[in-house]
Amino acid sequence: MPMKSYIPYSSESHFPIENLPYGVFSTVDDSTHRIGVAIGDKILDLKYSKNVFDHPLCEVFQQPSLQSLMASNKNTWSQARKSIQSYLSIENHRNLENAVFWDQNEVKMHLPTAIGDFTDFFSSYYHAYNCGSLMTPNKPLADNWKNMPIAYHGRASSIRISGTPVVRPNGQYLKDGQVTFGPTEMLDYELEMAFFVGGSLNSLSEPIPTNKASDHIFGMVLLNDWSARDTQKWESYFLGPFLSKNFITTISPWIVTMEALEEFKTDNFKQDPTPLKYLLHDIKYNFDINLNASVRDQKSQQIHSICNTNYKYLYWTPLQQIAHHTINGCNLQPGDLFSSGTISGPEEEQCACLIERTRGGKIFVDLGERKLKFFEDGDEVTLSGFCQGNGYRIGFGNCSSQILPANNLA
Amino acid sequence: MPMKSYIPYSSESHFPIENLPYGVFSTVDDSTHRIGVAIGDKILDLKYSKNVFDHPLCEVFQQPSLQSLMASNKNTWSQARKSIQSYLSIENHRNLENAVFWDQNEVKMHLPTAIGDFTDFFSSYYHAYNCGSLMTPNKPLADNWKNMPIAYHGRASSIRISGTPVVRPNGQYLKDGQVTFGPTEMLDYELEMAFFVGGSLNSLSEPIPTNKASDHIFGMVLLNDWSARDTQKWESYFLGPFLSKNFITTISPWIVTMEALEEFKTDNFKQDPTPLKYLLHDIKYNFDINLNASVRDQKSQQIHSICNTNYKYLYWTPLQQIAHHTINGCNLQPGDLFSSGTISGPEEEQCACLIERTRGGKIFVDLGERKLKFFEDGDEVTLSGFCQGNGYRIGFGNCSSQILPANNLA
Repeated sequence: MPMKSYIPYSSESHFPIENLPYGVFSTVDDSTHRIGVAIGDKILDLKYSKNVFDHPLCEVFQQPSLQSLMASNKNTWSQARKSIQSYLSIENHRNLENAVFWDQNEVKMHLPTAIGDFTDFFSSYYHAYNCGSLMTPNKPLADNWKNMPIAYHGRASSIRISGTPVVRPNGQYLKDGQVTFGPTEMLDYELEMAFFVGGSLNSLSEPIPTNKASDHIFGMVLLNDWSARDTQKWESYFLGPFLSKNFITTISPWIVTMEALEEFKTDNFKQDPTPLKYLLHDIKYNFDINLNASVRDQKSQQIHSICNTNYKYLYWTPLQQIAHHTINGCNLQPGDLFSSGTISGPEEEQCACLIERTRGGKIFVDLGERKLKFFEDGDEVTLSGFCQGNGYRIGFGNCSSQILPANNLA
Repeated sequence: MPMKSYIPYSSESHFPIENLPYGVFSTVDDSTHRIGVAIGDKILDLKYSKNVFDHPLCEVFQQPSLQSLMASNKNTWSQARKSIQSYLSIENHRNLENAVFWDQNEVKMHLPTAIGDFTDFFSSYYHAYNCGSLMTPNKPLADNWKNMPIAYHGRASSIRISGTPVVRPNGQYLKDGQVTFGPTEMLDYELEMAFFVGGSLNSLSEPIPTNKASDHIFGMVLLNDWSARDTQKWESYFLGPFLSKNFITTISPWIVTMEALEEFKTDNFKQDPTPLKYLLHDIKYNFDINLNASVRDQKSQQIHSICNTNYKYLYWTPLQQIAHHTINGCNLQPGDLFSSGTISGPEEEQCACLIERTRGGKIFVDLGERKLKFFEDGDEVTLSGFCQGNGYRIGFGNCSSQILPANNLA
């Protein structure tokens, strides 16, 4: 029997009682950062709503960020979820006399926690293949790629919440073979999903095996890994991306818990050859999440879909990402963010960034009035995603940013 | 006239009254983390020593880390230094009735602050040339290298203080062309120096120009960028180093301030071609710092010097590193750590890591009873450095770690 929420919403809402994602917000009258749960178009304010939790759990929800909750453990996460679900259910509506709700469109959302380290994986087979094809057409997939989840460290300080504008970055790149300085001419998005690391984590020199890794995944968000492709090409040899990625990274504000995603598990991507033993796991840990990217043209105000893909196209699972990341003893901390890398699928419209879709800027994406290669100032790019349940959706909301002109540094 | 300290020390001490580096320590009887200043073989305990600072500066030194001091500004840094110098001078010895001192060998040192983001540059010409020669002998220096300070994001969570053992990491690498899993067979060090970022820093999208960059350098430490070369070679294509570097990074515990280094400024490395405008600066911002690396063999207990080099061989200055890092709007935070990259000089014994010195493991370093290629379990590696003044030294102390055997994960 489906759960029934006291707060009404449509069957297309991203935030039914089966979801209950966490976020951090403030209101016009009260700038305190506090934890809320999205329900329909509302937010349940967990700081000021009485009777939701018993002691000691209530302490965790008095904090200005999700750090404490992330640092607790899977049982606590589960207990918190049950309490909120029960609190919001129609059977318990009398309790709600003590509840504080806000409209989602009247609050300001914030980063859900301080992010310690940010790791960006490169886990979609099709993305790796397509990018490789641009660089080395005769051998698109590097030798190492099917042997381990390739990743690099990203910049944590410049991660921002949906809604933060993207100022077009200045930088160095080659233009017609000349070293050039100026605003990037190849501003791109990457549709990714990321999870927050949680639980009682490993000390330095202690690997986390795949069969313990799921204890350390708190929940997921959408992530836009903004990229300046001209700078990226010029700077990356041989230490990898740097300024081409760290000017901003945008995440969606609501963290969907792994419990809410549980019933949308789907088969893991078939791995051939079989990876080394430390990367193997028996359980399913892949998810059927529909993902979309769109661009709103500033002049026409038209919104065009530019990608429809699915999380399930990732070759490496989150459990393998964690096991690999720690096999050398690298220690993780609650609040670390692990991103999937661009989630491209096998079809043309499943290319989840423009450099792939336009084959390195050689062809246009035809949007009717607009021939899209890379983004222009004023474009607003939106990622969204949801799992389709029976009569309800577990959604991630939106991750949107508008592009502003570069600073004039000439 | 030289300053005279109330606490005696030899002319070879790293910590005369002209130095006064900051560190964070605790004692056996009191596990409180607190800020101290090294003077000779002693530490002045700034938490419990009265009369050193007037209000409000004293608040900053009641903190358990150097975060607040770093987050203040250059004037505050200067004022604090003057107060401590005056307090410790022989003229003011009556004040010292209220001072608490510890022996350096009886305390435990800690990380001086939480490190937000860690950036590792690649700024020594000779290191870049030597590494490039191993990969592409016909063209050792990549096209981009003289146009910008190349760098990548490192892992902040695994930065540890001198004295922390290095557990040999397990990982994947190619051996005789086969994908292999096990303890690295090419465990290497890299002699680097790093600076802590401080001051009132830039917001996202606001570059810091070279002429403001010196306001944001709090002080310097030695840094050992431990590297698993076999893993590095296998994993790095095409996103750069990851597990080969993030198992541990070691820093020396005492932060030497830029004021203490002021008189050891030396000419900047000659740059040809002239870099782009945003990377230019008129002032000298290079330093004459003697650097050494040594290894103690566990069996023989012999200590062998394996590198003598100098900070002055860096091609790119810290001001250029900051200007480049922020030219795209990347925001910095107090407590971020910027490392130089391996500081190699032009001579054989100035190669500041083993992969260079052994030409990729092809030749040995002859240490008499020991033929060194890469490190063995039990080896203790020590970095040290100092500037030679007239009758005194501004030293960095030591950055030491012993190598322990790998976890058995077979």
